[in-house]
Amino acid sequence: MTDLLAPTATDERARAAARRDRLRVFAIDQALDAILVSSLINLRYLTGFTGSNGSLLIRPDGADVLATDGRYTTQAGAQAPGLELLINRACAPALAARAADTGARRLGYESHVVTVDGLAALHAAIAVHRSDGELRSVGMAVEGLRVIKDAAEIGALRAACSIADQALAALIGMGGIRPERTERDVSRELDHQMLTLGAESVSFDSIVAAGANSAIPHHRPSDAVLAVGDFVKLDFGATCAGYHSDMTRTFVLGPPADWQREIYQLVSTAQRLGREALVVGTSVVDVDAAARAPIVEAGLGAAFSHGLGHGVGLEIHEAPALSALGIGSLAADMAVTVEPGVYLAGRGGVRIEDTLVVGTDGPDLLTMTSKELVAL
Amino acid sequence: MTDLLAPTATDERARAAARRDRLRVFAIDQALDAILVSSLINLRYLTGFTGSNGSLLIRPDGADVLATDGRYTTQAGAQAPGLELLINRACAPALAARAADTGARRLGYESHVVTVDGLAALHAAIAVHRSDGELRSVGMAVEGLRVIKDAAEIGALRAACSIADQALAALIGMGGIRPERTERDVSRELDHQMLTLGAESVSFDSIVAAGANSAIPHHRPSDAVLAVGDFVKLDFGATCAGYHSDMTRTFVLGPPADWQREIYQLVSTAQRLGREALVVGTSVVDVDAAARAPIVEAGLGAAFSHGLGHGVGLEIHEAPALSALGIGSLAADMAVTVEPGVYLAGRGGVRIEDTLVVGTDGPDLLTMTSKELVAL
Repeated sequence: MTDLLAPTATDERARAAARRDRLRVFAIDQALDAILVSSLINLRYLTGFTGSNGSLLIRPDGADVLATDGRYTTQAGAQAPGLELLINRACAPALAARAADTGARRLGYESHVVTVDGLAALHAAIAVHRSDGELRSVGMAVEGLRVIKDAAEIGALRAACSIADQALAALIGMGGIRPERTERDVSRELDHQMLTLGAESVSFDSIVAAGANSAIPHHRPSDAVLAVGDFVKLDFGATCAGYHSDMTRTFVLGPPADWQREIYQLVSTAQRLGREALVVGTSVVDVDAAARAPIVEAGLGAAFSHGLGHGVGLEIHEAPALSALGIGSLAADMAVTVEPGVYLAGRGGVRIEDTLVVGTDGPDLLTMTSKELVAL
Repeated sequence: MTDLLAPTATDERARAAARRDRLRVFAIDQALDAILVSSLINLRYLTGFTGSNGSLLIRPDGADVLATDGRYTTQAGAQAPGLELLINRACAPALAARAADTGARRLGYESHVVTVDGLAALHAAIAVHRSDGELRSVGMAVEGLRVIKDAAEIGALRAACSIADQALAALIGMGGIRPERTERDVSRELDHQMLTLGAESVSFDSIVAAGANSAIPHHRPSDAVLAVGDFVKLDFGATCAGYHSDMTRTFVLGPPADWQREIYQLVSTAQRLGREALVVGTSVVDVDAAARAPIVEAGLGAAFSHGLGHGVGLEIHEAPALSALGIGSLAADMAVTVEPGVYLAGRGGVRIEDTLVVGTDGPDLLTMTSKELVAL
């Protein structure tokens, strides 16, 4: 991880400034006098600041203000050197007060992030300065910007995917996935490998699920012991520069049984069809349907109990959702996962997942590990 | 970690049921027809359920309902076997609809957790069933219950503190804190030790801060290299059964300089005074002041730039805040940290932190590691 106190690279600062400008255009379009950004993830995207408390005020005239508390004064100055800094523990109300006090009447805010109590605090802060203040939701405006990744973001995702690939290869290389070990042993060693290989952190609590547990989509590693004949499903990822990778592979301990070969082959086919459906302009519903078709045809539709995939970036789950309930179509430079699964309760399950970037010349596969059925 | 699918122990279930009954009494007192719990931490406290999506409906007649989505059907059934289960991805609106449809007019909700959009979804869900529905904030009612720990919670905190103590001892025993290593090396190894010793997870991103970085209260481990003459400050913790430990120790690499001895001694005195002030009935403001006094007297008041401590439990920071801005007084079985610090910008800083439980016979010290100045 880079030293947080080292000055942010010039190009990173320029990218953050360009993102703020896009949000500024949105503010002007919506006739807002300012926008208050409360999501810490969105704050990081727009400024580079990674502290655990902060808010950002975007103003049409470009006089943006970053608020945080005294713990982060040095860090905020280093990560977001071009921004005016306001040190106040109650970041969002302090910025709302500042906006109201300097001419803003209509203030945009993130209604999917701000709590009911938080909104009341914003109203109270504004009321001190003017009686005609208005707070209006900007919806998920920043998340909308985040859907399309730039080259540096794709580079970070690629690095994160590579660390996960390398960690899995190292784990297998040392015989780490073998009978007698517990799910928890495997998960701990996998995480350690990712951190040793330079991950900032793991993307989420790694899933290691053996035997019948592999039929539970989100099983958490337990003291269950791996045994010959088990499916072993590993769903995990690394973060680099804040960007998350996400991959799943399912192995068999010892020679696969016929039923294991069959469902593995089925999921493998579904996953390929899902990847092939990642074409610019395709609706996310159709991508999900393309991968789901062979599983439904095999009479196992109910055993694929979740969506096909999701966007990935500064959050492990972000837009777009590749699912029957998803909205919209694919565009170039969206980063998504493709992860069909078939889960047979009491027996076992298979999921195969890659992270990819949608492109005009077909998807860019970031997860390099083989998807053949491997017996360990 | 215990297997999440193993049936929850009877006494754990009884404790969760007793907590729901306390909240039920609150509902009746406040003339509420039901309470909707949205905080996942509060949900865990009240049911034992640890999934990442869920809500709980508490009803005066005891017919409580736990909602989660299809990923967690098995887990919820195992962790909260006594509760009616509602499977619906939109947990909170689904429960609000259920409440409205079964006679509830006044529904309590957590306004510090529910977002503005979330409240709109609750209103919409209720409006389908009745036009006279009301949503009323219950404030931090469940957090209020959580402040006082029971014997099992204290046991979990003690186990979590012990793992942190053991991990630090192991790290020191292997010569892990030495010149030439980076802060990140040390942090990774400390985390690995805690996980190997049985921590479910680390309590928070461990802080390892060497040399001038030790003067930054919340420094994140960087590639900075440890050197002779440095203060090395480690702030870290482990979780057991969801409960967080929190400890800080500051070492010197090589023989301490006079200024290092002086500020270490000062912080050590402050920390002892803070612990001694943990008396049932003492206001949290007075506890903070007791520890702060010698630092202010030494003319270094500004160098102690944060509160003295905080409650700790299912969250790393919870009530009560031991600070000049804190509210209320100490009661028996509150678990708190005592962590004064003195930070000299550009030179280095010292923080010493223990986790303790307030008791009628004086505080119960859960952090066992020595607080003497140790040169490594």
